[in-house]
Amino acid sequence: MAVAKITPKSEDYSRWYQDVIAQAELAEQAGVVKGCMVIRPHGFAIWEKMQADLDRRFKETGHKNACFPLLIPMSFIEKEADHVDGFAPELAIVTHAGGKPLEEQYCIRPTSETIIGHFFSKWISSHRDLPMLINQWANVMRWELRTRIFLRTTEFLWQEGHTAHATHAEAREEVYRMLQVYADFAREIMAMPVICGVKTETERFAGAIETVCIEAYMQDGKALQSGTSHDLGQNFGKAFDVQFQDTEGKRDFVWQTSWGVSTRLVGALIMTHSDDDGLVLPPRLAPIQVVIVPIFKKAEERAAVMEAACRIAAELRDDGLAVELDDRDEMKPGAKYYEWERKGVPLRIEIGPRDLQSQSVMCKLRIAAADERGRPKKLTLPMADLGLSVGKLLDEFQDFLYQRALDLRAAGSTSLDTWEEFSAAFEDDRSGFVYAHWDGTAETELAIKQETRATIRCLPLEGHGPAPEPGKCIKTGQPSERRVLFAKNY
Amino acid sequence: MAVAKITPKSEDYSRWYQDVIAQAELAEQAGVVKGCMVIRPHGFAIWEKMQADLDRRFKETGHKNACFPLLIPMSFIEKEADHVDGFAPELAIVTHAGGKPLEEQYCIRPTSETIIGHFFSKWISSHRDLPMLINQWANVMRWELRTRIFLRTTEFLWQEGHTAHATHAEAREEVYRMLQVYADFAREIMAMPVICGVKTETERFAGAIETVCIEAYMQDGKALQSGTSHDLGQNFGKAFDVQFQDTEGKRDFVWQTSWGVSTRLVGALIMTHSDDDGLVLPPRLAPIQVVIVPIFKKAEERAAVMEAACRIAAELRDDGLAVELDDRDEMKPGAKYYEWERKGVPLRIEIGPRDLQSQSVMCKLRIAAADERGRPKKLTLPMADLGLSVGKLLDEFQDFLYQRALDLRAAGSTSLDTWEEFSAAFEDDRSGFVYAHWDGTAETELAIKQETRATIRCLPLEGHGPAPEPGKCIKTGQPSERRVLFAKNY
Repeated sequence: MAVAKITPKSEDYSRWYQDVIAQAELAEQAGVVKGCMVIRPHGFAIWEKMQADLDRRFKETGHKNACFPLLIPMSFIEKEADHVDGFAPELAIVTHAGGKPLEEQYCIRPTSETIIGHFFSKWISSHRDLPMLINQWANVMRWELRTRIFLRTTEFLWQEGHTAHATHAEAREEVYRMLQVYADFAREIMAMPVICGVKTETERFAGAIETVCIEAYMQDGKALQSGTSHDLGQNFGKAFDVQFQDTEGKRDFVWQTSWGVSTRLVGALIMTHSDDDGLVLPPRLAPIQVVIVPIFKKAEERAAVMEAACRIAAELRDDGLAVELDDRDEMKPGAKYYEWERKGVPLRIEIGPRDLQSQSVMCKLRIAAADERGRPKKLTLPMADLGLSVGKLLDEFQDFLYQRALDLRAAGSTSLDTWEEFSAAFEDDRSGFVYAHWDGTAETELAIKQETRATIRCLPLEGHGPAPEPGKCIKTGQPSERRVLFAKNY
Repeated sequence: MAVAKITPKSEDYSRWYQDVIAQAELAEQAGVVKGCMVIRPHGFAIWEKMQADLDRRFKETGHKNACFPLLIPMSFIEKEADHVDGFAPELAIVTHAGGKPLEEQYCIRPTSETIIGHFFSKWISSHRDLPMLINQWANVMRWELRTRIFLRTTEFLWQEGHTAHATHAEAREEVYRMLQVYADFAREIMAMPVICGVKTETERFAGAIETVCIEAYMQDGKALQSGTSHDLGQNFGKAFDVQFQDTEGKRDFVWQTSWGVSTRLVGALIMTHSDDDGLVLPPRLAPIQVVIVPIFKKAEERAAVMEAACRIAAELRDDGLAVELDDRDEMKPGAKYYEWERKGVPLRIEIGPRDLQSQSVMCKLRIAAADERGRPKKLTLPMADLGLSVGKLLDEFQDFLYQRALDLRAAGSTSLDTWEEFSAAFEDDRSGFVYAHWDGTAETELAIKQETRATIRCLPLEGHGPAPEPGKCIKTGQPSERRVLFAKNY
């Protein structure tokens, strides 16, 4: 049990992030396979909880899971012109198999629009086959030069929704429906507020006619694109000849969408809530929501304390809580506290001989400093109805984390109107979210990026960011209808 | 809605199998990617139900899920001598990535003992780190020459358990524990009886010192290996230097196991239960357990019938059943029956105007021919407490399918003692399971295979196959301790 320190966030944010991951045993760089990671059990359990909740939401909105091949013929990738331009440089190529060179080479899927387009063309012939609403949980591969664990890895896990519709209006409804599913999931389950918006043409998915996204505020003031939903128009429909006959017998190409979130969300979660003591998990994503640490000094105390600890663990489990009873004899309570804090367990319950007498337990939330919320550092809860009071405490903690993240984002967001202020803001490493006017051209977007490293994260949707008001472009002075969101990004 | 016929089993078993899959829309050959398949929503939903149940069993036996890289450095594959011999001919190789040739080539994992061995060596140093009990749900790739949908595809989905232990005895306990988990799952959930046994050296996993398996009886009398569990000894521990310090401070290599089942189980399920009318699903794996078909002729009947159908659907769903209400107006009831039969829905409920009056519904199980069980083809059930009676009906149907499969296997199994009988048995295409004596040598095993195409599926464990009794090898007359299981296999 080597006790390694976590580098403070203020000292080196990037090392802090890596230390949190290493000490919570979430994942590690694979090393031997370039840019890949191994997701360890604690990290994978978080991803499984994300998957379960998202999968339920996808099914409730009418989608069905399926599984398409990992390998895609190179000729498929080349069928949609923008798509190949976007993805060709990042492909991993299979040239040999079964001991022989392949006649047609395959790439490992970077995303599956092409191969799914191929099958849609086989399955869709009539308006009665529409809408086709498919989702796939899969691994994908993009050979990135610079990788960062969870945030950008050559292989990652994700889900990719792919749908086909009879009209553009229906497809656009789907694009925005799934964006809302992502935003709801981020808020309700990850306790992570997001800005929903439209990507600029520069940042659009290769092959889409519009990309919308959720952008989250990280504790270092950078933005993290956390999910995207694409209006593919008829681009892939035409490339893969996906036609249907409408109610009047006329043939047309389908209108398609795709949308995805990935294991990047685990990185987003870490950078939204964690602190210098390690991982902080919202209860709805915590693989262990409550850890019970029995405390006794004398051997004769052990039996009674353990009996109570087991009983409480069983009661809480009956109430649907994920409970770990840490009964390791060779470890002191302090070392256990330290370990579970680093692993982000939301609530710790301590039970000792005195608690048995008073029929109560000591509870400590993962973050409960008096200066943050006025709550005492430890709480005493009666053993009676403990499941109920613990459940309430965890619900409050979930809300608290969301509110704290919202406050942090508010404190890190500004609206700026002069180039001096704007460029000064982005000289700082913790530059935050800046809402400013933009003239709508790719040239200006690029010029701003080159001078400040700030990118346009999105054109916020109604209800996101400051209320729309016309103004002048921060860089060129040209007229602008509303502010857009600038930030440095991951 | 083209109404295609299912080729009768008796006419062409192989085409029957493909027709069942195609018409239930379970999966299809990818075509464009050699030997791969697309698993369509109905097929994937069955796999998801298998996964959910297995995953629960793995977690209950202390295993945790994790995720390791898809790509494995070629040098890793070469570290364990038997392993490379076994898998090298079947590898798909990535030679280029990010637009450049790779310095070290990777293969797409055919199985993950090597890369997991590498990480075990980083994570394990003390007996306190043991046992390490990991499982991974993943796609793997083996470039097979002859493929068959679900049964043998170049890419397939599976789970691979990988564990490390301090002693060989503990590792062997794990090997047999997980074999029992597979056998229980097959019996309880798939309604599929299996023979548990030990593989001969010839059929052993490349790198294992012992492989045990579950073998299932298919309706054409062939055997299907449905799951394997391997005692890896210290082979991979030595190849990847996975050492630990025991309680006395002595260093030793860990003892490892691995075990897996795959999407092949979907093929096993089809070939165990399905018939000439299409797919037959045991209720515990049916994505739709009950389909409700509303019946009405006049428009004025529609409202009342649909109201009752909706109410019944809601009630059954409240009772935890997976219910589809087929309210498609453009389709006649007969066409709906036909479609849901092909998709293997265990129970159909019909509701019409007369049923509303009698406050009952007509029910029909997917297989309920009077000649098979003496049960009338259709049942009338009162609407009151329908959830309870339907639940009971489905439980009985699950048991019925298991018993039917068991009976079929019994009818197709024999013990033979002369070479004449034995070789004659395997001249038949529907040769079945033959228990016969074998002298224990690889030479005899090979000679028998070459002459009859029969392979030794396993040396049955206690309680499987006929009771042990000594005898003489069917081929050489040499002494043998007990009969082994011969069959043609997939």
